[in-house]
Order: sequence, then structure tokens, then C-alpha cells
Amino acid sequence: MTTRPVGIFDSGIGGLTVLSAVARRLPQEKILYLGDTARVPYGTKSAATVSRYARQCAAFLCEQGIKALVVACNTASALAIDELRDMLGPQGIPVLGVIEPGAVEACRVSRFGRVGVIGTSSTIRSGAYERAIKTIKPDFSVTSAACPMFVPLAEEGWTGREDAAARGAAERYLGPLGEAGVDTLIMGCTHYPLLRDVIQDALAGVTLVESGEAVARDLERTLSRLGIAGGPARGGGAAEYFVTDDPERFREVGSRFLGHDIQAPRLAELGDLSHPSPHVVQERR
Amino acid sequence: MTTRPVGIFDSGIGGLTVLSAVARRLPQEKILYLGDTARVPYGTKSAATVSRYARQCAAFLCEQGIKALVVACNTASALAIDELRDMLGPQGIPVLGVIEPGAVEACRVSRFGRVGVIGTSSTIRSGAYERAIKTIKPDFSVTSAACPMFVPLAEEGWTGREDAAARGAAERYLGPLGEAGVDTLIMGCTHYPLLRDVIQDALAGVTLVESGEAVARDLERTLSRLGIAGGPARGGGAAEYFVTDDPERFREVGSRFLGHDIQAPRLAELGDLSHPSPHVVQERR
Repeated sequence: MTTRPVGIFDSGIGGLTVLSAVARRLPQEKILYLGDTARVPYGTKSAATVSRYARQCAAFLCEQGIKALVVACNTASALAIDELRDMLGPQGIPVLGVIEPGAVEACRVSRFGRVGVIGTSSTIRSGAYERAIKTIKPDFSVTSAACPMFVPLAEEGWTGREDAAARGAAERYLGPLGEAGVDTLIMGCTHYPLLRDVIQDALAGVTLVESGEAVARDLERTLSRLGIAGGPARGGGAAEYFVTDDPERFREVGSRFLGHDIQAPRLAELGDLSHPSPHVVQERR
Repeated sequence: MTTRPVGIFDSGIGGLTVLSAVARRLPQEKILYLGDTARVPYGTKSAATVSRYARQCAAFLCEQGIKALVVACNTASALAIDELRDMLGPQGIPVLGVIEPGAVEACRVSRFGRVGVIGTSSTIRSGAYERAIKTIKPDFSVTSAACPMFVPLAEEGWTGREDAAARGAAERYLGPLGEAGVDTLIMGCTHYPLLRDVIQDALAGVTLVESGEAVARDLERTLSRLGIAGGPARGGGAAEYFVTDDPERFREVGSRFLGHDIQAPRLAELGDLSHPSPHVVQERR
């Protein structure tokens, strides 16, 4: 039993869906959340850049004394998980991404072995979900599609069934997946669950898989196996929040995203990797 | 007469529309372009963060020996122009943003004194265009609207009249401007000219103003006034490109954006402001 917190990072607010799932399943754990809102999004950026950002986020959370790291961002999970494990492994800190749990869950629920994957351009380009699925089920077929408009649609709140832009985008992106006959779809980006209705309409009868629940279960098993699970519940998933851009804006948007109020997010200044001294600074202004 | 280049920076590729306008009007000038593609977009970020990024971009271009700086990015122009002038003024380097030239042009062409402004959330929130217009024409009415979906639509190439998502977004954002009876609309973001047809359809009869042409004229006057205009044309607007994320991807997307090939963009590593040593590093692989 330990009182050290679990760290979760994401490129922005999307990872709050993962935080919710972890807090529900593991209410006894303290959570530190870091949203890299000054550099969001990751999904349009190169592997080298995403990897650099992910290492900076991980280093910051390690300085705060975390006992395990959850990479909530699909893009960072797809592009940087091995490097993060190389970096944190020697410190005895397990690193969990969302790709493997999502792939395992999709393989478990798929009825006909035809899995679809949607995600950011960088996630899809990486082929990470496809590799993970093929490792588990070599005979499954995998069809992927990048859906770059889904994140801005979710952030703009244009997510309803009646929304012409959301419906148009969903039909355009998901049509080929429907034609490929997928029976299961991995929503490979933390924002996509907000578009669940529109996605389901475009792919009627297809089973939708979210990684948040899956990674929460994975985390529970990992903490238990390593003997580092938290103590008895004390008020349910207490979380502290750090962001790299304006904390107040994160509080506003994140509270809406999460459905309850976010307490006092703080500004985190991530150290440049060439000068590795991450530290928390006072909120400016 | 000088051979020192003009520097132009933008959060990403959008500023290439400004580069085009400058290169057409001033073919004798050498241009250095910097796209901060590792941190794009600026338009959703806070004033403090945009200002920090803008100062880093300016510092990098100054190290390359520019004689004048054009801030192509509307958000950076709106939020950071004063700081950049304070920073570069003592070095005798004029700083030109896109807000003032755009406002001047809108005031010149408006027939009934009813001007609309569209831009990113941060640009609109800043009120910079409104202040600039009111300074020139205190009796003009100004109606503004943030259009956050327009940048992702332009980057996805969903810009045609027949595109349902683009049309839906345009009607939703621009409807209130139509009701306000604007006669002139400032397209206050470098990406928006790509959506010109859709925007014009949603606001029939309204005069559309682009800042690129206006800032190019402003630059011509400024260089001439300071006696630092370039020599006789040598092949028309030779440009060198720097980016903060993958140069190859910038070359691909930027060439499409610009309509001709971009030569060998290089990776720029911007110094952290707390360690001010901007320098160019070798392209990574």
C-alpha cells in the first residue's frame, strides 16, 4: 500500500475521459493529471516531436513522485510508449498506454474478426493499433481511417445527431469502414466518445470500443500485481491537475468535459530536454 | 539598399498566403519564413503562451539577420505585436502585423460603415481588429465572430462550395454577421482565404478583405521609408523556409498550399526563453 499518486497525461483535455474511468474503477488512488494544453494537438505532429513532448510530460510527472504512468493520449501511446518505458522502467514505474488495452478489448468483443480503427493522422499513420491487433489475432482484418475533423468538432461542441457538420464528417470518414464490413470499431482518440451517437449512426450495428475503461482495468491489474495499489477509499479519486497553458481556461472547458468541477489546476512548466529541470512555477499574472 | 532578408513567421503553413503576397509585390526581397509547426495552432491558446511563442520566433529570425519582421499570424499579431515592437525596436527592426493593414483596408472599402471580423477564438477575444477599426473610424460598427472550425476545414481540404461540412459551418458562424448587415468582412486568419467561395456564398454581396495584400503594401512603404529596400530583382522572391516540426511534411503540405514547390525547409530549434540561445540544428532523421 502506498500513497504515491498515479500520473496521467494527455495532449489536452481529452484524457479527462480516461481519468474518469480510472477514478471510477480505482477510487482509492490519488491521480495527477497533466494536460499539455500549450502544445495541443499532438495528432497532427511528427513522431519525433510527439516523442519529445511525451518525454517531457513523463519527466514532469516523475518529479511529482508518481508510482505509475498512464498515457491517455492515443497519439503519444502510438508513437512514444517504448521510449517512455525505457525511460521510466529503470525507476520501477510501469507505463500503460491506451493502444494495447483497446486492441485487447476489440479482439475480445469482435464477432467476425473485422475490426475498424479511427484516430488522429499520426496515430493511424503509425499503424500501432493494427500491429497490436495482429499480435493478438493474426487472422483478424483491420481497416483504419484518420478522422482529423473529429477533435475540432468535439471541442466546438458540434457533436449532436442533428449537427450537419458532424454528420457530414462522420459519413465521409466512416463510409469506407462500413463498406469494409467492420463489426467492431476502436475509437482511437480520447475525444471521439463525445461523438459516439454520430459515429454509431454512421456505422449501425457496429460495436464501439473506448480505451478508457480498458486501460483502467489494465492499471488495476498492474498495481495489484506490483503490490503498489492505494489504500482504502478517501473520498473517491481525488485528482490534482496541471496544464501547460492557461489553467483557468482548462478549468472551464475541462469541467464541462468531465461533468463536474475541476479544482484549481496549476501551471506546469515543462523543462526543455536539453536542460532537464522540470519544475512547477507559480501561476502567472 | 541591403541584402538582408525580410522575416515572416506564422504558427504553421497559413502564413504562406502572406509570403505569396509579399513575394509578388516585392520580388527583389529575400524572405526567411518560419512556421512554428510543432506548436500550431496559436488561435486556441492563451495570450501569455502565444506571446512567449511569438517572442521565440522573432528571436530566431533576428539571429538570422533579418531587416524587418512580418507577423503573418493574426493571433500573434493581435496578442503580441506591442511586445515584439518593444523587443525589436531597439535593434532598428520594424515589426509589421496583419491587424492594422487589414483594418485600414476594410475602412477604405466599406460602403456603409458596417464591418464584420472573423478569426480564431484568441484573435476575436482580443478585440484587436475592433480597436484598430474604431481608431480609424470611430463611427463604424464592428461585429465579430470566432470561427474555430475554419482552420481544420481548410487543412483537411474541405473547402468547396459543395462540401456539406464547410457550408454548414459557414452558415452557422456567419449567419449572425449577415443579420447584423455587415457590408465588408475581414478574413482575420491566414487560412480563411482558402474558404473564400463558401464564405462569399454565406454572405452574398459582402466585400471580403484579406490581410496578405494589405501587409505587403505596408511592408513596401516601410522599407522604402527606412531606406532598406532590397536590390534589383534576382529571380523573384527567393525564400528560405524554417519549421519547428518535420520539414518534409511542411514541404508537402506547404507546396500544395502555395501552388509551387517549397525548396528544402530546415528544422529550427527555438530557444527556451529562460535559456535564450536560438540556433539552427541539423535536420533530424
